[in-house]
Amino acid sequence: MNIIEPKSGASLILKKGEILKVTDIEGCQVSDMLLYNLNNHDEKISAGKTFDYEECILLTNGNYLWSNQSNKMVKIIEDTNGRNDFLLAPCDSKTMKHFYNISEYHPSCFENLYQGLNKFGIAKETIPSAFNIFMNVIFNEEGKLNVAPPTSIAGDYVCFEAQMDLIVALTACSALDSNGGSFKPIGYDVLENK
Amino acid sequence: MNIIEPKSGASLILKKGEILKVTDIEGCQVSDMLLYNLNNHDEKISAGKTFDYEECILLTNGNYLWSNQSNKMVKIIEDTNGRNDFLLAPCDSKTMKHFYNISEYHPSCFENLYQGLNKFGIAKETIPSAFNIFMNVIFNEEGKLNVAPPTSIAGDYVCFEAQMDLIVALTACSALDSNGGSFKPIGYDVLENK
Repeated sequence: MNIIEPKSGASLILKKGEILKVTDIEGCQVSDMLLYNLNNHDEKISAGKTFDYEECILLTNGNYLWSNQSNKMVKIIEDTNGRNDFLLAPCDSKTMKHFYNISEYHPSCFENLYQGLNKFGIAKETIPSAFNIFMNVIFNEEGKLNVAPPTSIAGDYVCFEAQMDLIVALTACSALDSNGGSFKPIGYDVLENK
Repeated sequence: MNIIEPKSGASLILKKGEILKVTDIEGCQVSDMLLYNLNNHDEKISAGKTFDYEECILLTNGNYLWSNQSNKMVKIIEDTNGRNDFLLAPCDSKTMKHFYNISEYHPSCFENLYQGLNKFGIAKETIPSAFNIFMNVIFNEEGKLNVAPPTSIAGDYVCFEAQMDLIVALTACSALDSNGGSFKPIGYDVLENK
């Protein structure tokens, strides 16, 4: 298994048909994921399109994640925990200031995502909301939301089957409240389709 | 009042402190709105940042709409209807095919937004999810959502106070289900701050 150290990130190419398995090694740790079309960087993961086509805010086993150009990017084919978030944008330095009053340097998902994407020539200005694996954002019918600790336990994983050739960026999230108060690693594997 | 004809769009500059008033002239009609920083087109409206900072999915009087760079773009200072949507991406030609089985040309918010933005040199590939004024997307705690007819009646309006100099694109939405089954105009005014 490839290891993403706490508060860091990784990026990779995932070819059509391959499966990305993302594992919460210790439990209670979020991983932000971004997807770009390998052959057209203008096409990328879109929360708004996914909510529209899947007719659901909460995405798990059987759901697709869609692009801003209305194409399927990945299918979720396994999800042992079942709770992920697609509402909230990646934490950044201003998030750290706003919610934690951290003014000095602190790693963030935004930084870790754009550093991973940079080697593929993708600019940070293009970064949309990420799919937040294991993140537990609770909301009611009036729309009020709060970030609760992930319900994932050690060894929980989500498998994504690529529907097109993709660039993937992943993090081990750097925002304390999203991860139940401590920073932990994330694991990932690329598997051949059976 | 400026009139956006059914299934069309408009764009304008809104300077810091000015107020944009968007009116549902006949009732039961959605208007998609995009915001870009006039002086930095890489900065634009972000659903994910807004949900995060406002800690709410449903935005109305008193809420701010935030940018992808974590800055406030507008404040909602009046909202006579009170129901808007920020979950769903603008309808496009593929949405029309998917939900309505329309294969021939049909106007869409995506087309009307990018045509409005084009004159400011903003490319359609940059378009994020729009703030959908008067749109009535109902969801439950399990995340299941459905698009219901707007609750707005003739003369309802929302006022947005600009927090920075902005480019604004607006539509009279072209998707039947979003508008209670008929296409109607939208009105808008730019008002000086009192």
